[in-house]
Amino acid sequence: MRFSKFGQRLTCDAGILSLMDDLGAARSEYEGEMMMMGGGNPGHVPEFQELLRRNLQEICGDPAAFRELVGAYSPPQGDAAFIEVLADLLSRHCGWPVGPDNICLTNGSQTAFFMLFNLLAGVCPDGSCRKICLPLAPEYIGYADLGLCDDFFVATKPKIERIGDDMFKYHIDFDALEITPDIGAICVSRPTNPSGNVITDSEVQALDRLARRHGVPLIIDNAYGLPFPGMVYAEAAPFWNDNTVVCLSLSKLGLPAVRTGIIVARPEIVRALASMNAIMSLSPGSFGAMVTRKLFASGEVVDLSRNLIGPFYRRKMEKAVAAVRRECAGLPYRIHRPEGAMFLWLWFEGLPLSSLDFYRRLKRRGALVVSGHYFFPGLKEEWRHRQECVRVTYSQNDEDVANGIAIIGREAGKAYAGSGQ
Amino acid sequence: MRFSKFGQRLTCDAGILSLMDDLGAARSEYEGEMMMMGGGNPGHVPEFQELLRRNLQEICGDPAAFRELVGAYSPPQGDAAFIEVLADLLSRHCGWPVGPDNICLTNGSQTAFFMLFNLLAGVCPDGSCRKICLPLAPEYIGYADLGLCDDFFVATKPKIERIGDDMFKYHIDFDALEITPDIGAICVSRPTNPSGNVITDSEVQALDRLARRHGVPLIIDNAYGLPFPGMVYAEAAPFWNDNTVVCLSLSKLGLPAVRTGIIVARPEIVRALASMNAIMSLSPGSFGAMVTRKLFASGEVVDLSRNLIGPFYRRKMEKAVAAVRRECAGLPYRIHRPEGAMFLWLWFEGLPLSSLDFYRRLKRRGALVVSGHYFFPGLKEEWRHRQECVRVTYSQNDEDVANGIAIIGREAGKAYAGSGQ
Repeated sequence: MRFSKFGQRLTCDAGILSLMDDLGAARSEYEGEMMMMGGGNPGHVPEFQELLRRNLQEICGDPAAFRELVGAYSPPQGDAAFIEVLADLLSRHCGWPVGPDNICLTNGSQTAFFMLFNLLAGVCPDGSCRKICLPLAPEYIGYADLGLCDDFFVATKPKIERIGDDMFKYHIDFDALEITPDIGAICVSRPTNPSGNVITDSEVQALDRLARRHGVPLIIDNAYGLPFPGMVYAEAAPFWNDNTVVCLSLSKLGLPAVRTGIIVARPEIVRALASMNAIMSLSPGSFGAMVTRKLFASGEVVDLSRNLIGPFYRRKMEKAVAAVRRECAGLPYRIHRPEGAMFLWLWFEGLPLSSLDFYRRLKRRGALVVSGHYFFPGLKEEWRHRQECVRVTYSQNDEDVANGIAIIGREAGKAYAGSGQ
Repeated sequence: MRFSKFGQRLTCDAGILSLMDDLGAARSEYEGEMMMMGGGNPGHVPEFQELLRRNLQEICGDPAAFRELVGAYSPPQGDAAFIEVLADLLSRHCGWPVGPDNICLTNGSQTAFFMLFNLLAGVCPDGSCRKICLPLAPEYIGYADLGLCDDFFVATKPKIERIGDDMFKYHIDFDALEITPDIGAICVSRPTNPSGNVITDSEVQALDRLARRHGVPLIIDNAYGLPFPGMVYAEAAPFWNDNTVVCLSLSKLGLPAVRTGIIVARPEIVRALASMNAIMSLSPGSFGAMVTRKLFASGEVVDLSRNLIGPFYRRKMEKAVAAVRRECAGLPYRIHRPEGAMFLWLWFEGLPLSSLDFYRRLKRRGALVVSGHYFFPGLKEEWRHRQECVRVTYSQNDEDVANGIAIIGREAGKAYAGSGQ
């Protein structure tokens, strides 16, 4: 069967595909119970689910509301009532000067990035090819295959700050970061997937100045951030202005199945995305918007993020860190300071095998993680560090995470000791 | 702001965009009550909605089921349980030799076509550019802007069979239809949007032979067809084989907001689409699959389509036809024989103004339709006929449809009489 270039590009072996396939396949490959610390599925926060369940029950109890839930296309920009309450919430809680013209919904964050990246970069009308600048590698694995032309990303190696005995933090290396004329946009995830880094407010401001100076938008992937779902364990202020494109999502509130991404941007970009929604999918689904609309209208979603969801993941993070310290004691490991999201990013300095081989060993022992080497799209130079890290998801149940981390500790110990398997 | 070529293509003035914008804008432009006969929103079948509402209530009543509804990504291929029961249903009811490997879900049919068309046509690895062949114009407006390169479609003018005093039917002109080496796939909607045509079984078989002979897939857009939603009022058999790609949808069952498209194809194509789902959106939403799963597992959806949804639209169609005959009596109009879907396609032969101008007049008088000229993507040659048709949606309430058709009759009468507005 002959596929187009576009088709070949989107059906080749991609990191995100291996990841998704792995989630299914790994279970059958290992005979015991696999500790699933690879995927990005959020945890289960019972109190929050209960609120949503009651909201949906209420909708189901009212035939007119139910009819609206399933029976009408939303506009290409997304459910108008939700957009209105969200604009209001962002103005009130974050002080962002936004109205409904600044918000577009998409069928999930991934689709938002497919549209945004290819809108702002790729082949241009003048034949030139623009790129997305990732100012801090490592960066999200899901970006890597989104570009519709080659060499779509350029990434910059970070500065590494070693913190105490066993932590570290990435910082943007502004001396090395160069915004060349072929850059179409700058993009950073904050909190960062995979590292759990939250770039500082001053780093964000510096990126903003840089973006403005070069006349390109700054995209901030805020899927884990503020004001919702609030998976931030460090000091950080939400940031937006009319040169910034902030992407939010309902997924990490516990609703990954509803596929609702949210883009906050200047009206010109919102109109473009609504057009792309119309052509590519008529309109985005409205289920997520409708089932959460009340929580956004009342502002409860912000309180729940602050007092329920954030603390839920912070406790998991603290347990996971304690487990690493217990299980990896004596090994030359470092944890990226876990400032947000739901991942520990473990750096095994001088690991005598590649992170991919290490991942394979872990999988055979019953612990599924993601090899760190996938998370450096656009980084051209050789760098030993990218073979020394793994991403460990701590969103699932604590006992599994502890068991999985014990396996990591044992296998890392064996690897450093030079013994194979 | 500088957009990429891809961005410009997907944000230009597209027919489908005018249509969507129009739906919103028209209401404010006309002071009275606008008769909405432009869009593709399905009607409201209360008994069916009630079944769905009870299904969803049941899910909401069970915390574990609710958790599954919102809390976990489905695989990139789509909800596995739904795919399994659907494969079983298609085998039993249509005799298609399909299993779960033959089915992929997407975020709506439009997204399915974006992926399919650009997978099978467009720029190829060897630099050549393949096209989608539409063997019978007029064809669906939503296809027109999906191609990622220019001249993406080639369409063939139909043969017109005049039937009785005031009907006609399009037939594929197999003498004129040529499958050149640059064709990547053949695509036809059946029932056809906009004409309500259902190409005959022998036409389908001839297309199938042609497709096989030229080694390209035959895509059948079955969004209104059999075995669900069953909006078919003529004799027609469902068709699939391993060179056919059949696209189905939950939208016209009354669930447009859930955005669930279904593709039935050979495993190679299903795998490719699942990859594209993973890269472009991680996974398709599972709401539609979960809320209808029981109806598919029991096979009820087929009976309901046959005994409830089909008859619901057939009655609306009959009323709309009667209204046209009443309101347009004496004018040189013809209705495409309404064999399926939810549109009347009205042909005003020798109309002294373009269909776009006619549409504008109607809008000023309070009747919103779609100008027929949009529905000829890929047809190069001049043809007066494409300026003589309008698409009239009859899915909404009968009184509005009758009122709207009265406006059409009056304005057509004035146009033929040479009087302006």
